[in-house]
Amino acid sequence: MALIVQKYGGTSVGNTDRIKNVARRVGEFRARGDQVVVVVSAMSGVTDGLIKLSKEITALPSEREMDMLLATGEQQTIALTAIALHALGIPAVSLTGAQAGIVTDGVHTKAKIQNISPREVHRLLDDGNVVIVAGFQGRTEEGEITTLGRGGSDLTAIALAAALKADLCQIFTDVDGVYTADPRIVPSARKLDEVAYDELLELAGAGAKVMQLRSVEFAKKFGVIFEVRSSLNDNPGTIVKEETRSMEDVVIRGVSLDKNQAKLTVIGVPDQPGRAAKIFRRLGDGAINVDMIVQSASHGGSVRATDISFTVDKPDLLKARKVLEELRGEIGFGEVQTDEGIGKVSIVGVGMRSHTGVAGKMFEVLATEAINIGMISTSEIKISVVIDLAQGEKAVRALHKAFLG
Amino acid sequence: MALIVQKYGGTSVGNTDRIKNVARRVGEFRARGDQVVVVVSAMSGVTDGLIKLSKEITALPSEREMDMLLATGEQQTIALTAIALHALGIPAVSLTGAQAGIVTDGVHTKAKIQNISPREVHRLLDDGNVVIVAGFQGRTEEGEITTLGRGGSDLTAIALAAALKADLCQIFTDVDGVYTADPRIVPSARKLDEVAYDELLELAGAGAKVMQLRSVEFAKKFGVIFEVRSSLNDNPGTIVKEETRSMEDVVIRGVSLDKNQAKLTVIGVPDQPGRAAKIFRRLGDGAINVDMIVQSASHGGSVRATDISFTVDKPDLLKARKVLEELRGEIGFGEVQTDEGIGKVSIVGVGMRSHTGVAGKMFEVLATEAINIGMISTSEIKISVVIDLAQGEKAVRALHKAFLG
Repeated sequence: MALIVQKYGGTSVGNTDRIKNVARRVGEFRARGDQVVVVVSAMSGVTDGLIKLSKEITALPSEREMDMLLATGEQQTIALTAIALHALGIPAVSLTGAQAGIVTDGVHTKAKIQNISPREVHRLLDDGNVVIVAGFQGRTEEGEITTLGRGGSDLTAIALAAALKADLCQIFTDVDGVYTADPRIVPSARKLDEVAYDELLELAGAGAKVMQLRSVEFAKKFGVIFEVRSSLNDNPGTIVKEETRSMEDVVIRGVSLDKNQAKLTVIGVPDQPGRAAKIFRRLGDGAINVDMIVQSASHGGSVRATDISFTVDKPDLLKARKVLEELRGEIGFGEVQTDEGIGKVSIVGVGMRSHTGVAGKMFEVLATEAINIGMISTSEIKISVVIDLAQGEKAVRALHKAFLG
Repeated sequence: MALIVQKYGGTSVGNTDRIKNVARRVGEFRARGDQVVVVVSAMSGVTDGLIKLSKEITALPSEREMDMLLATGEQQTIALTAIALHALGIPAVSLTGAQAGIVTDGVHTKAKIQNISPREVHRLLDDGNVVIVAGFQGRTEEGEITTLGRGGSDLTAIALAAALKADLCQIFTDVDGVYTADPRIVPSARKLDEVAYDELLELAGAGAKVMQLRSVEFAKKFGVIFEVRSSLNDNPGTIVKEETRSMEDVVIRGVSLDKNQAKLTVIGVPDQPGRAAKIFRRLGDGAINVDMIVQSASHGGSVRATDISFTVDKPDLLKARKVLEELRGEIGFGEVQTDEGIGKVSIVGVGMRSHTGVAGKMFEVLATEAINIGMISTSEIKISVVIDLAQGEKAVRALHKAFLG
């Protein structure tokens, strides 16, 4: 008998027929004698519908109230999933994030899980129930409803698996697993049997839309081995785990393209200690995630100054601009330029650690394709370049062919 | 400065424009310096949509899970209402029933409020917020989500007004208040400025669809004065309160017609002690609400026997028939006749207590209209008669004219 945590995303519970399918699948595991905890997202479309309602009222709704609003999406799914399990004669009890003991900090719309008290879940499992937990949500110590932000349901599943000491965590989604590249861009892309946490982290951070960073980080931190697999078939998925020796034999695990970045350039930042730091501290205070940063000598003006370029997620562009405008007087820089027409292409693999010349080969491949490189950043197991968005898919195809055949 | 509890029903919050209207209205009270607690229902259509989803899965979903599912409707409205108030620059915080301290028993889908701990609501009011509370829901001591059943949002408002010792409770709805009769039947019907709890109880029990009985009972029990008024205009509504001396000057407060009753007649019940009692005990066990009862000598057969007629709500007719069929062998009665073509016409007024001849006048009026009376029941402040449904509206018009001009 194993204890399994299964997570089903919005598409997998997108209508009542699909919810019945989820119930059937859960029933199969239970028939084997497994204890099953099911984490579900809101039915696809529900969250967007609620956001739309809020936007009909105001452009910038309060984050606390958005949590109150959006948490209802998952709550509906858990109830319907429990009802579907009952219809199959399977005892099941639904729990909101709060009821499941998921306690978070108070940062609404992107709360962090602080701890999980799995007592109620254990009690219900021991009584023979399938326990269905609302993903994406929790509560503060004070009883405020919070949500975990994008990809929060994955996080709920992995954190629950850790807290419950589950034998396995399965993330059911609408793809078969983790691929060497987006198959819509690279038709010859292959599904990976396994991938290291760090590789998936870099791939996700580089735009591969398999899972959100924090869920993978959480899994790595607590050593939760999980499987990404499809809810539409019975194919085995991709196992995500700590890297093993044999993983290093492969130089590059995957190639990814992030179309969701925008570039800001702050012209003429006075070249004095602490000015740049202040910019990034303020952006950080505004919860704006800065990815790549490049600093270069400024071309204009008589005072010694630098230009600072950096990238942020496209949805944060306006907010970042606003932060900069507020800082302009204080720091005394010139204009702020923005560019939304960029793409970030990355190659990822733990094998880079033991293989040399990977960056050189990457730049050669791009040069052969006449693709100009704007910014570069590297980690131990990743190389990313910012290029013209229009050349993004061509770059991915060329790199996949060169490194992955 | 007054503390006001306002309740807005599903139609009043039926879309985001209406929610904005509610916010504007709340803002007007706040601008006067009042503290305002707002209780809202689910947006009209939302609850039905959720019920439909559950029925797509199974005909008889678990009541615990239905509460989990349906409670999301009000939770959405409170968040959207808070957002709409913020958009007007008014500080507002939404609370689920559980967060507002509404503790119920564990009878899912029709839970009873056991107590309300208004500490959090008071704290938020004292901090200058409008507090928006989800109607229709609460939680058990153990933290299970419950709902209060039909009319539950009115009950939430009145119970909160009692717990908060509010100065006024306003029930906003889609009618202007309580009328002397249904204006669709009697064009000259007038809105009442005030009505006694007992009168409204009798009117509601007699088919006037203003409010559910138990909300009025609760208000009476705790002396909560409330106003029924329209959310579509600024007209003053009807104040509902303990009866005053002057109320007795009016003989009849209103006339109502209940088209939702059906009559069953059990022929030939042996005239022995306990037989009739057994019938009504079994009906009670089946949660079937019996209204009027008439017993008369049976015409057929040689054994001493009686015919027993009684009325039930139409939706309970089949269930009542089934209970009787099960009892037939045990009690030994003859056939069961049913009649869905009846109407119950009632006249209500606390003035009846001090005025004589009211029943006589009522029967005379009906006789003049050639309307035959099937059953009669009276209370201290109400007289009801069962007549042919087809003559119901004519009877209401004639009685309104005779008693209310």
